[in-house]
Amino acid sequence: MTDRIREILGWYRSENSGVLTNLSRMLNHGRLAGTGRMVILPVDQGFEHGPGRSFAPNPPAYDPHYHFRLAIDAGLNAYASLLGFLESGAADFAGEVPLILKLNSHDLLHPEKDPLGAQTASVRDALRLGCVAVGYTIYPGTAERRVLYEQLRELAEEAKAVGLAVVVWSYPRGGGISKEGETALDVTAYAAHIAAKMGAHIVKVKLPGANLEFEDARKVYEEQKIPRETLTERVRHVMQSTFNSRRIVLFSGGAKTDDATIYDEVQAIHAGGGTGSIIGRNSFQRDRAAALKLLDNMIHIYSGEKIQK
Amino acid sequence: MTDRIREILGWYRSENSGVLTNLSRMLNHGRLAGTGRMVILPVDQGFEHGPGRSFAPNPPAYDPHYHFRLAIDAGLNAYASLLGFLESGAADFAGEVPLILKLNSHDLLHPEKDPLGAQTASVRDALRLGCVAVGYTIYPGTAERRVLYEQLRELAEEAKAVGLAVVVWSYPRGGGISKEGETALDVTAYAAHIAAKMGAHIVKVKLPGANLEFEDARKVYEEQKIPRETLTERVRHVMQSTFNSRRIVLFSGGAKTDDATIYDEVQAIHAGGGTGSIIGRNSFQRDRAAALKLLDNMIHIYSGEKIQK
Amino acid sequence: MTDRIREILGWYRSENSGVLTNLSRMLNHGRLAGTGRMVILPVDQGFEHGPGRSFAPNPPAYDPHYHFRLAIDAGLNAYASLLGFLESGAADFAGEVPLILKLNSHDLLHPEKDPLGAQTASVRDALRLGCVAVGYTIYPGTAERRVLYEQLRELAEEAKAVGLAVVVWSYPRGGGISKEGETALDVTAYAAHIAAKMGAHIVKVKLPGANLEFEDARKVYEEQKIPRETLTERVRHVMQSTFNSRRIVLFSGGAKTDDATIYDEVQAIHAGGGTGSIIGRNSFQRDRAAALKLLDNMIHIYSGEKIQK
Amino acid sequence: MTDRIREILGWYRSENSGVLTNLSRMLNHGRLAGTGRMVILPVDQGFEHGPGRSFAPNPPAYDPHYHFRLAIDAGLNAYASLLGFLESGAADFAGEVPLILKLNSHDLLHPEKDPLGAQTASVRDALRLGCVAVGYTIYPGTAERRVLYEQLRELAEEAKAVGLAVVVWSYPRGGGISKEGETALDVTAYAAHIAAKMGAHIVKVKLPGANLEFEDARKVYEEQKIPRETLTERVRHVMQSTFNSRRIVLFSGGAKTDDATIYDEVQAIHAGGGTGSIIGRNSFQRDRAAALKLLDNMIHIYSGEKIQK
Amino acid sequence: MTDRIREILGWYRSENSGVLTNLSRMLNHGRLAGTGRMVILPVDQGFEHGPGRSFAPNPPAYDPHYHFRLAIDAGLNAYASLLGFLESGAADFAGEVPLILKLNSHDLLHPEKDPLGAQTASVRDALRLGCVAVGYTIYPGTAERRVLYEQLRELAEEAKAVGLAVVVWSYPRGGGISKEGETALDVTAYAAHIAAKMGAHIVKVKLPGANLEFEDARKVYEEQKIPRETLTERVRHVMQSTFNSRRIVLFSGGAKTDDATIYDEVQAIHAGGGTGSIIGRNSFQRDRAAALKLLDNMIHIYSGEKIQK
Repeated sequence: MTDRIREILGWYRSENSGVLTNLSRMLNHGRLAGTGRMVILPVDQGFEHGPGRSFAPNPPAYDPHYHFRLAIDAGLNAYASLLGFLESGAADFAGEVPLILKLNSHDLLHPEKDPLGAQTASVRDALRLGCVAVGYTIYPGTAERRVLYEQLRELAEEAKAVGLAVVVWSYPRGGGISKEGETALDVTAYAAHIAAKMGAHIVKVKLPGANLEFEDARKVYEEQKIPRETLTERVRHVMQSTFNSRRIVLFSGGAKTDDATIYDEVQAIHAGGGTGSIIGRNSFQRDRAAALKLLDNMIHIYSGEKIQK
Repeated sequence: MTDRIREILGWYRSENSGVLTNLSRMLNHGRLAGTGRMVILPVDQGFEHGPGRSFAPNPPAYDPHYHFRLAIDAGLNAYASLLGFLESGAADFAGEVPLILKLNSHDLLHPEKDPLGAQTASVRDALRLGCVAVGYTIYPGTAERRVLYEQLRELAEEAKAVGLAVVVWSYPRGGGISKEGETALDVTAYAAHIAAKMGAHIVKVKLPGANLEFEDARKVYEEQKIPRETLTERVRHVMQSTFNSRRIVLFSGGAKTDDATIYDEVQAIHAGGGTGSIIGRNSFQRDRAAALKLLDNMIHIYSGEKIQK
Repeated sequence: MTDRIREILGWYRSENSGVLTNLSRMLNHGRLAGTGRMVILPVDQGFEHGPGRSFAPNPPAYDPHYHFRLAIDAGLNAYASLLGFLESGAADFAGEVPLILKLNSHDLLHPEKDPLGAQTASVRDALRLGCVAVGYTIYPGTAERRVLYEQLRELAEEAKAVGLAVVVWSYPRGGGISKEGETALDVTAYAAHIAAKMGAHIVKVKLPGANLEFEDARKVYEEQKIPRETLTERVRHVMQSTFNSRRIVLFSGGAKTDDATIYDEVQAIHAGGGTGSIIGRNSFQRDRAAALKLLDNMIHIYSGEKIQK
Repeated sequence: MTDRIREILGWYRSENSGVLTNLSRMLNHGRLAGTGRMVILPVDQGFEHGPGRSFAPNPPAYDPHYHFRLAIDAGLNAYASLLGFLESGAADFAGEVPLILKLNSHDLLHPEKDPLGAQTASVRDALRLGCVAVGYTIYPGTAERRVLYEQLRELAEEAKAVGLAVVVWSYPRGGGISKEGETALDVTAYAAHIAAKMGAHIVKVKLPGANLEFEDARKVYEEQKIPRETLTERVRHVMQSTFNSRRIVLFSGGAKTDDATIYDEVQAIHAGGGTGSIIGRNSFQRDRAAALKLLDNMIHIYSGEKIQK
Repeated sequence: MTDRIREILGWYRSENSGVLTNLSRMLNHGRLAGTGRMVILPVDQGFEHGPGRSFAPNPPAYDPHYHFRLAIDAGLNAYASLLGFLESGAADFAGEVPLILKLNSHDLLHPEKDPLGAQTASVRDALRLGCVAVGYTIYPGTAERRVLYEQLRELAEEAKAVGLAVVVWSYPRGGGISKEGETALDVTAYAAHIAAKMGAHIVKVKLPGANLEFEDARKVYEEQKIPRETLTERVRHVMQSTFNSRRIVLFSGGAKTDDATIYDEVQAIHAGGGTGSIIGRNSFQRDRAAALKLLDNMIHIYSGEKIQK
């Protein structure tokens, strides 16, 4: 148990020992064990975008066992997915990688500018599958976000009582936010803050752009000269906005991109004090060898080592 | 117990022995016992389309006992129907054919482009009727699919806990999908994937066409050159999309058609690695002799034998 | 579905279809399927007498998988055991043989003339393990039999509601019955009747002797000239006492004995109209080859065939 | 994940993935990780014998943190204790060693030949404290063992449903067993078998002597020539009696003794195929340096290495 | 918030913040606020001994308001009593002194050597009355202590979940303990240890004598040369036995005695590291002025100041 992990667990002192134990299980698993940094594999794309768009670029990824093995072989901290995907491998890979059960999900089969998704698994499912945490996606900005917030609240309370950690994916969306605004700096910081305020132990947001979405925010950001030119500065601002870094915050890059871009992003997350990455499409849409190389290099960067890009 | 059935049961290792036993009961019943292929008789048409449209073409089918006898005499793997139909014969035919109780149903008495249906039976009903599984229909693409997904989630959790298998009919419908799109390849694969991700043990979808509904999907399908000209290729894609064939997937043909067409479809399902057929209107809207002949030939095809069309 | 099975199921018409289905599953499984006769393997000896006394005569029987395989390979109707033994194989042998979960058990580690035993499994356990029935042992004659009867009542009610059959082992014991009286004809008939009156679907008693235990009974038996010289006559009397044969009654022989004796007993059960045998020590305390031969011959006798002793 | 651990987890296939994960967490923790052998530190002596008798020989052991550190520093597989002791360190040592919460305990403040103990913690306590398992002590042979068996049954069912492993301490005691008989070979094998039959995942018994307690058992042991002269042979018999080694069985030595004796015992457990040791008084009643040396040597023996006694 | 209070709260890190807050309320109330020492007024004598024996020596004490005022005016840390007594003043003195609701009590109206008492209030009562803690008396050594331990377990779990602290009065009594043995050193240390192991946050025992009750204990106490001549040494041993002083332990003196004796006892508690006193009869059976003087002097001693006896 490193000092850094003790420090991180110290942020969650009002949680019960079960939650602390499960946070510790993630922080002390895989190749980043003990560093206080994390890389997590999330696979909820098939439900969100359909299986073809998700897995056709790397067909072995149609197989749910592929993702268990990728997370294990890459030495990641945890693997997050939906009920059916975890059910199809939880017994086969029991104890080999910490599992996070996403409790809600959303498909794109009906056009809607204000997404809601649906609860697709329960806290009891997470216990019977041996998970360390439950996950939930909120869409701050969606019209009916009250429904999401209240469902999250209820599930999070239930999860904490039985010692499970709570991971919140916080994706600003909805009729009041422009497309670019979804990753604006003010909106991203806002989304991270809301998730943490609702009691998330781990917050997951997208990497923010330098743009600002709301005029009221812009005025303050400019008056206060909040640095936001570099990605590192923006990550730092998000961390500050998430309880002055007293919560674990993971960043995702989104759609598939090239390795060099990802390394630059990871360098920025690392330099800006972000906890780590949650990297789905950019790992499972590459072939396995390329994915393992990419994840290996990300882990090197988070370990503070130089890599050959 | 054949090796193939052991392999199939191995896909469901995180389920309890009750679920495995009930899956085994279906897989080892009837003339396809042990092959890993299945043909199931579903009779929910009366509720969906009204009794006249459903049964007038073959009036003996008004009688619920008719369907029990058809499934038994044809040597099918299971018979699925709604509460009242099962209640009217479950005692009379106890133990003669595995039963699946459909827990929800939908009528067409009110025009709606985004169907929802209603829960019309319970998990306890399934136990008291001696069923091996419960069934549930979702309409991915319907505006309020959240309601369906959450009801399915709750019922599936309850069913699994008492050892019942879960069969999900996944029919894309709703305001955001064109009529042809309901059986588009991308949409069908998507629907199968969603059902499996929600924890279905058995997924039931319609046979897909070669068309693609969504532009984002089309781009990927064309880039990745996903074969989709023949029905066999399309079945193969659906199977791949359903956990790389780690779930049982049944295909239905839909409205009544001629025998030769059905045989071609079954050949394609067989060749494409589909688990089997769920065949309602095309069995009970023929007269009994014709239905038995059709089902007999389907079973021959699934057994890998030649038939005389 | 044979006429005989239909007739037997007809005795239980007020039970729900789940119970009928599970009775049918036992009656239609194995080599006696459809005959209306049954042979069941029970293995609760290890808890009752300790593992050494139970399994040392045939050491492979220490392994719980041994008994699953024996019941399957011999083509028996069902296998009954306690929680741990079923847990250790229910997933491996799912669907291969109907399972009966004994819900209570008794050890001999404290001397007591009025045994009670304890509940060691639940109806929910039976469901999650995929069982067709629950079993329960009562000791009519034991001082605190009220405790047993009331626990059985509650468990049987719960089991029937979820479609499980109820098997009652009825063993007269206690301070008011002499050692020989435990298998006296009047006592055995009484025990079978009590079990059936409490709602058992299947009653299990020991083979009765010609002796009578109670004076009040003796008076009537002699006045009414109830035939009891041959075992066949005594079996017939027990069947008559169990709702005039409207319940399934299985007989056990008890401690290990030679094959010829068992064949004579089985002939008598068969001739007297008994449903069949539940044969534990006499099957698993022989080596596997001898056990299979014995069971094979028993099945031949129940099938009405001649055997070479 | 070694082949041996996969094999062991395979014994528990009918349990849910949560149970498998928690068994895996113990089997893969500490210096014996992956070997399939286990050494566990149990500290329930203070409640059983009073704090003076338990801790005065090594006063630092009065401090609950002492035991957490000992289990961690010695690299043991798990640490088991009562509610208060776990509460006093579970947050401080979260995630550093798998924890087992003993759910019942017994004190010696009232003389009784048939002990019962009392439930002193709950399954929900185990979840909030981040435990991998619950523990429960039964006294086969105690007059009111029915009360213990039924409480265990209920707690075990609840624990398994939420993914916790179940460890049963099986200590024969009570008016019908002589003092020497409590560790007789027949009685120890019987006790281990009962615990496993009740659904324990891990069974804990005392090392058996060569004596036999019950006449009925003696007859069989002598007839069948069950080897029992050496401790290795006796361990082998206990393993065989526990589902032919399909369950994890841990042995304890009891009162404090010298190192050489313990090494001989551990050699015998190792050679006889026992899973490992649960060693309380002999670890915490030595000073820390001596305890670490002892545990280190035990681990060497279980690893198949030579040690210098 | 002093360092000492932080240190004490640190012992309870696995409890929720509600429990920590309520412990803090007691520790930071009254004239000993912040010192880590406590003096508490308990008034359960009327139920235990009848009102005459309890209050006739100081008739104003018949009035429940008398005790609220005494605890407030003396600047004590908390006031503990039974339901009716708290109900009669909780509104009048709301917020003026931390309240502890005793949840069980015992009368002497039926002779019994193994007392049990009865639950006379609930955790919900404690919430509606604004209490900081619940109290419960166990009689380690009483024949049916199982009943007490299990009731305490259930109430303590409920109390902790809603953030209430748990205070356990641990009074050894029963057929297996001699009258003098009830305050023997070994028995007192044992009683304190049991209460702490059951999860008490605050343990209350009687001041121990130098005598030892049990032979098995005597042997260890003498071998290990546990100092027990002075009261200070004995207090130190009790503290050590209560998780090496990681729990709050309060001592009571029992029947009414003179001031000088009490001061000596308090000096010993202070010197031996005991947390403080719980002083009932010796405060409310004196007249108010004398009681206030006594309590004032006790507080001085606990503050480390000299007093004029």
